[in-house]
Amino acid sequence: MKKYNVAVVGATGLVGREMLKTLSQRDFPINELKVIASERSEGKKIQFEDRELTVETVKEGTFEGIDIALFSAGSGVSKKIAPQVKSAGGIVIDNSNAFRMDSDAPLVVPEVNGEDLKNHKQIIANPNCSTIQMVMLLKPLAVKYGLKRLVINTYQAVSGAGKKAVDELIEQTKSYLNKEEIKNDNFNHQIAFNAIPQIDIFLDNDYTKEEMKMINETHKILHNPELPVTATCVRIPVIFGHGESLNIELNSNFKIEDIKELFAQTENVSVIDDPAAEKYPLQIDTENNDDVLVGRIRRDNSVESGINLWLTANNLRKGAALNAVQIAEYLIENDLV
Amino acid sequence: MKKYNVAVVGATGLVGREMLKTLSQRDFPINELKVIASERSEGKKIQFEDRELTVETVKEGTFEGIDIALFSAGSGVSKKIAPQVKSAGGIVIDNSNAFRMDSDAPLVVPEVNGEDLKNHKQIIANPNCSTIQMVMLLKPLAVKYGLKRLVINTYQAVSGAGKKAVDELIEQTKSYLNKEEIKNDNFNHQIAFNAIPQIDIFLDNDYTKEEMKMINETHKILHNPELPVTATCVRIPVIFGHGESLNIELNSNFKIEDIKELFAQTENVSVIDDPAAEKYPLQIDTENNDDVLVGRIRRDNSVESGINLWLTANNLRKGAALNAVQIAEYLIENDLV
Repeated sequence: MKKYNVAVVGATGLVGREMLKTLSQRDFPINELKVIASERSEGKKIQFEDRELTVETVKEGTFEGIDIALFSAGSGVSKKIAPQVKSAGGIVIDNSNAFRMDSDAPLVVPEVNGEDLKNHKQIIANPNCSTIQMVMLLKPLAVKYGLKRLVINTYQAVSGAGKKAVDELIEQTKSYLNKEEIKNDNFNHQIAFNAIPQIDIFLDNDYTKEEMKMINETHKILHNPELPVTATCVRIPVIFGHGESLNIELNSNFKIEDIKELFAQTENVSVIDDPAAEKYPLQIDTENNDDVLVGRIRRDNSVESGINLWLTANNLRKGAALNAVQIAEYLIENDLV
Repeated sequence: MKKYNVAVVGATGLVGREMLKTLSQRDFPINELKVIASERSEGKKIQFEDRELTVETVKEGTFEGIDIALFSAGSGVSKKIAPQVKSAGGIVIDNSNAFRMDSDAPLVVPEVNGEDLKNHKQIIANPNCSTIQMVMLLKPLAVKYGLKRLVINTYQAVSGAGKKAVDELIEQTKSYLNKEEIKNDNFNHQIAFNAIPQIDIFLDNDYTKEEMKMINETHKILHNPELPVTATCVRIPVIFGHGESLNIELNSNFKIEDIKELFAQTENVSVIDDPAAEKYPLQIDTENNDDVLVGRIRRDNSVESGINLWLTANNLRKGAALNAVQIAEYLIENDLV
């Protein structure tokens, strides 16, 4: 089997480390592996299986011979450095927001729109974490019933904002318990024992960038730019795993049992929906489960053909690192590298 | 000024203590004050201004001469004991779910439907905490624009489940930080650093009782039993203050600025809505603010005449104790005692 030269850019961050873990867990066919980060981390050692890797910064020639570079180092770095990979002949799979809405860059969840990779131009965008887990459920509904309108509310983990955000939640929590002053640096408000109805910056329409990502990326991934979608994104004091509440209007009638069966048959989706036993998806359940978990599936009688459901998924795995690695796997399987 | 004989039933609970605090803060015209709880608390002393009160249990004659009894001792106690108050000639203002949907019992938020108290039959119901804060905003919208449909998502504090629930969140949080086993007794799942998409028990339609309370109580309070409403209620690891995300379809067109102005002019509502300064309502803001706080008011372009907004309020104050005391004040001011 052919092996590939792989680079992970942002290798020391929460998502970067998860990318390395995922490559190993899934036995990705790796020849050379480069781990790249900022100067702050240069020279650090990272163990990958039986290899001891040394963190490099980007220099001239860094990407020579690289087949696939997985990026998770923020939008600024991606914009600056991804073109270097492309010039050197490699493919970028970028976890940032830099290229997601570029018409040249496929925005892909392999189970949903993997075929969009067939026209890639060496830069491929990984969608926003909260979008990825949602479209995994919207796609089968779109195919079988058609989507009419979508109201999204999120309950997002702090790890979506990186390691510093996780540390701040922990520090603030300790301060609260010790009745000490609560300091915030990464978040603009207290996050311990509080919720913040803002993720990313505000845009001119008073939506946050995170909310507009969910709307615009859903349009692009589902090839349905006119789909009416609205979103409210909220950060809650949870460390790992995003929760989402979806209110969906479908275009045609349905039986709730058929929808549960549809999800049960959907690849990489697990239905956890047993109200009598008080079982439904939890964010803590996603720590060791790479599936999108869906439950609380019930008819919404306030509208024709409406349903409510609740889903959780691991925002660092399916929401980021795993999806990026799955894109790389799809490229290999379909001779697109 | 006439003074009244008042009893607080469930005086040692989170809401009961808040009722006593509220009575004092608002200089409620009290003659005799009885504090009543279960046998477990009998004989305990409670300081109320310059009075030292002794906790009593309910005995024959306990409610003789009582004008107003504020109940917060759970639905079972209310069903059993409220009729005794009524027989003795007093009025019950009950914070439990026991009488809310009884056609004989007004279900009242004074700013919204105080006039419903005029036909009271001595038992008056205080709505569910998450309903109270929401209808404070729905009423002015209903009057000015008419309501077409409502999609509710809640982000509710653990204090809504009582003192034991608060203690459990704190204990679980400490256990998590100390890498110790997390025990749950009050909640059916871990609540520390997690969200639980279930509040109260499940009903036959797979909605929780909390969700159906929000739907049914809204219908009753707004005198609009056909209003299409759906709800998803989620407990998050916040101690005090409920957050809610509302997606509202109105019956007529509006300007967003007019809606902000309408809320700004609504009694006991504060608008905190300045995206440029990253200001919006937080749950921690409700600790020392009795208003319903509303922000993130923005047009929902996914539907005609749609808006999204985010609100927070103190679930123990406006959501429970304060609203109950306001009902008592309304009764006095309108000669309904």
